[in-house]
Amino acid sequence: MSERHLLIVAHGSRRQASNDEVRELGERVRAMRDPAIHRVDVAFLELAEPSIPDGLARCAAQGAREIIVFPYFLAAGTHVATDIPEALATFSEIHPDIQVRLASHLGASASLAKTILDIASKAG
Amino acid sequence: MSERHLLIVAHGSRRQASNDEVRELGERVRAMRDPAIHRVDVAFLELAEPSIPDGLARCAAQGAREIIVFPYFLAAGTHVATDIPEALATFSEIHPDIQVRLASHLGASASLAKTILDIASKAG
Repeated sequence: MSERHLLIVAHGSRRQASNDEVRELGERVRAMRDPAIHRVDVAFLELAEPSIPDGLARCAAQGAREIIVFPYFLAAGTHVATDIPEALATFSEIHPDIQVRLASHLGASASLAKTILDIASKAG
Repeated sequence: MSERHLLIVAHGSRRQASNDEVRELGERVRAMRDPAIHRVDVAFLELAEPSIPDGLARCAAQGAREIIVFPYFLAAGTHVATDIPEALATFSEIHPDIQVRLASHLGASASLAKTILDIASKAG
């Protein structure tokens, strides 16, 4: 079975605490030890490290055969529609042997409505 | 049993499509018809309507006895830490009979890691 990696891509913020929140989220996802995902990493579109190209290169260096890129964005703006796909296309030109799949961004995911009801029920 | 309403609070954007994404998310949550939640509404901190005070007032006008406010934010910045709680405190002064509960913001919710793995598995 091929090595499948998950790369969580966030916008990045001048506020370091926000970037750290994303890194902690990556750790929480990692800690769930999904048997279908061999590694979980995070990358940032801007303002924080690693960048998306660096994050993808790290996956490749660590033996990924398949990378699922998850845009940790609420809205389908230019970043989701253009910037992230462009970064993936550039990577795929260099690494045609690694399959890169772009997941739906968080705000559009079918699971999100249920997640919100879960959160609401915990507050109630 | 008291009428429990859920108010999803988003930042709001100059980009109308982003605000519409939030409204559509509200519809998806509504469509799940959670028996513990009587109404689902959305409100915006800025740049879109309704505002948080208007959203809360609408819940009150529609008979809410309890309002769960869910910050649809990825990071715990000033909006989550200060602006939203202040808006809720102002409302509670006017409506001390209505219980207002602030849920954890999306980025901090315990359910989010599992949601991300669900999204990733659908992309794989």
